Amino acid sequence: MRDANSEWLCRRLLEIGIRVKVRTDVEDDDDLIATAVAQAVKRSAAVVVSGGLGPTEDDRTRAALARGLGVELERDEAVVAELERRFAQRGRRFTPEQARQAYRPRGAEWLPNPLGTAPGFSVDLGGVLLFALPGVPGELKSIFDASVAPRLRERVGEHALASRVFRVGGKIEPAVDTAIRDLYDDPDVTFTVLARATGLEVLVTVEAESAREARGRLDAIDAAIVDRLGDALIGRDDRTLARAVGEMLVSAGLTLATAESCTAGLLAAEVTEVPGSSRWFRGGVVVYANDLKTDLAGVDAAVIETHGAVSAEVARMLAEGVRERCGADLGIGVTGVAGPGGGTPDKPVGRVHIALSDDDGTLDRRLDMIGDRRLIRRRAVIGALEMIRRRLL
Amino acid sequence: MRDANSEWLCRRLLEIGIRVKVRTDVEDDDDLIATAVAQAVKRSAAVVVSGGLGPTEDDRTRAALARGLGVELERDEAVVAELERRFAQRGRRFTPEQARQAYRPRGAEWLPNPLGTAPGFSVDLGGVLLFALPGVPGELKSIFDASVAPRLRERVGEHALASRVFRVGGKIEPAVDTAIRDLYDDPDVTFTVLARATGLEVLVTVEAESAREARGRLDAIDAAIVDRLGDALIGRDDRTLARAVGEMLVSAGLTLATAESCTAGLLAAEVTEVPGSSRWFRGGVVVYANDLKTDLAGVDAAVIETHGAVSAEVARMLAEGVRERCGADLGIGVTGVAGPGGGTPDKPVGRVHIALSDDDGTLDRRLDMIGDRRLIRRRAVIGALEMIRRRLL
Repeated sequence: MRDANSEWLCRRLLEIGIRVKVRTDVEDDDDLIATAVAQAVKRSAAVVVSGGLGPTEDDRTRAALARGLGVELERDEAVVAELERRFAQRGRRFTPEQARQAYRPRGAEWLPNPLGTAPGFSVDLGGVLLFALPGVPGELKSIFDASVAPRLRERVGEHALASRVFRVGGKIEPAVDTAIRDLYDDPDVTFTVLARATGLEVLVTVEAESAREARGRLDAIDAAIVDRLGDALIGRDDRTLARAVGEMLVSAGLTLATAESCTAGLLAAEVTEVPGSSRWFRGGVVVYANDLKTDLAGVDAAVIETHGAVSAEVARMLAEGVRERCGADLGIGVTGVAGPGGGTPDKPVGRVHIALSDDDGTLDRRLDMIGDRRLIRRRAVIGALEMIRRRLL
Repeated sequence: MRDANSEWLCRRLLEIGIRVKVRTDVEDDDDLIATAVAQAVKRSAAVVVSGGLGPTEDDRTRAALARGLGVELERDEAVVAELERRFAQRGRRFTPEQARQAYRPRGAEWLPNPLGTAPGFSVDLGGVLLFALPGVPGELKSIFDASVAPRLRERVGEHALASRVFRVGGKIEPAVDTAIRDLYDDPDVTFTVLARATGLEVLVTVEAESAREARGRLDAIDAAIVDRLGDALIGRDDRTLARAVGEMLVSAGLTLATAESCTAGLLAAEVTEVPGSSRWFRGGVVVYANDLKTDLAGVDAAVIETHGAVSAEVARMLAEGVRERCGADLGIGVTGVAGPGGGTPDKPVGRVHIALSDDDGTLDRRLDMIGDRRLIRRRAVIGALEMIRRRLL
């Protein structure tokens, strides 16, 4: 029951102006498939079914779908002949099981599959258009673009949707919610606030009579969001926090270096997920052991002794030391307790100190986070990137 | 309608002996949620709902779920007080919206959330157990393990499913498939070979008359898999490649240091995802810029000039240099072209050199991978860890 296609399908459908409201995954079982299809047809204007069209025993979609729709399955001899021809062409033996792929519900129209053996099909139920596509991602995508999208566009007409993701930094979910809540009233606009491991996102979708109108209204909402969130707005769509930081560094002509203890390379790995990051990222050190904080980043061993490895003082020396040793304009240092062990009443799990050093001096901040090891480390990375972004604003 | 949890949930439920037959994702809409819950309750013995329990306007699950079940929502003042206390503790302002999280359907039992603000809850409908959990993955997982799994185990009792994940290193999917194919015949056993970013996995599920019989048969299959895969078997279930390497280093009393160019901290981050990794991981350097390869890891600048930064020679010097500078028993160096830019006919995108240095000398290997930047970097990390594992066998 793995679903390789739904994110792609939802995106493509949205571009056409169709919002996917319900998605159901079921096991390869006739009853479950028939019920799911019958329910979907009842509540929707369009239904896309994927997977289970192949020649094997566990490909149950054709029969189950016909049952869900209450029609017969029929065999198409022209498709059998075409399959035989294709098998012969590639020197493969055509077995009777392959002919399963030539059955369709009565009244269905074939959707050719240039990349594979199982064709898709569509059924026009009057108010509802239903499409069945093979689950192999490449085949599904090519059939969708060639045969499904045009039929849906024709049906949808000038009604349209436009959507945009707004990425937000340095604010918690309720604060963002409060800031933009007065925009929620419009029934044609949907707001979804998502707290993800990479930060907060607000997904805005506008429904309108035409694509042009939808885009125009989305731009108006965009302006209102900029007004409400100000500097907290990191970017739109693919402009992640790491990308925003990278673009700001490039336009300022500055470079960055990292010294990481608890995040241990995760911050460097995140900034280098951005293609072309070598223009602004020089490198850094991962100083898990305390003696390496001294040897690789020049942290005074006496300071570690006095204040502990998890302290603002050590974070500051990490930032300053790595900046100097890597010859970077900005140095950032991260030290903390990621857990599950290592916490004390004084320095509990989730305590992270981050410091940022540049020509003007060194800033530091303390984060106290809840979550497991994985989450604390990821949130520390977001905190560090957000600190750089704020510095560069 | 993005779903971050279902794969994890399906796996955990399977371990308990519950197979997920239907999964539905719906938009944040009361009608859709209520309908989906009502349908799920009708056809299932257990229902897990995730997401939409937070404090914001679009967190619709509580109300919709109560409607789907046909019961009232009630506010729990004890939970409000606990939320206020937690906010005060962290110096955050408690707003009235936060109190939304203190509502539950009448008759529901709270499931505490140690990692976040929104508690989950369970409803016992007689024949059906329903659980509602927050969507934040860390919170969902901790509540599931602490509160949901025990309740389900009790209900399921002597179930007849047993499953195990086998993690495989250094083999591609068709090779694994061929090696274990003769085990596929048994109709009560399901084999799923999964190629994941973290490596190859074989999920084996056995259905039997009793849990004991299922476990016994699974152990027999386990022995057969050990026989077929030999050293390629990394571990079972939660024993990931990084954990296996960590355990091997601990029992050998050895430490590790990393010098990374194209993976830029991802390898260090992966080994330190393992709790307690400070016992065997000392630290490392991220040497994106060429002059840092020299300054931080002692790579001869003339060697970079002659052979290029992406070369076996540089990987070897990175491994040797970082081993010495970090005072580790093993040093590993990684350099390559992650793309999308930077490839040449001679050194195409996907080319990665890895070297491993220890007391006995230095080994190197070359990988040529296909995929995008993200995938190439992740596969390089797997390649490096697998190289360490092989060395320690």
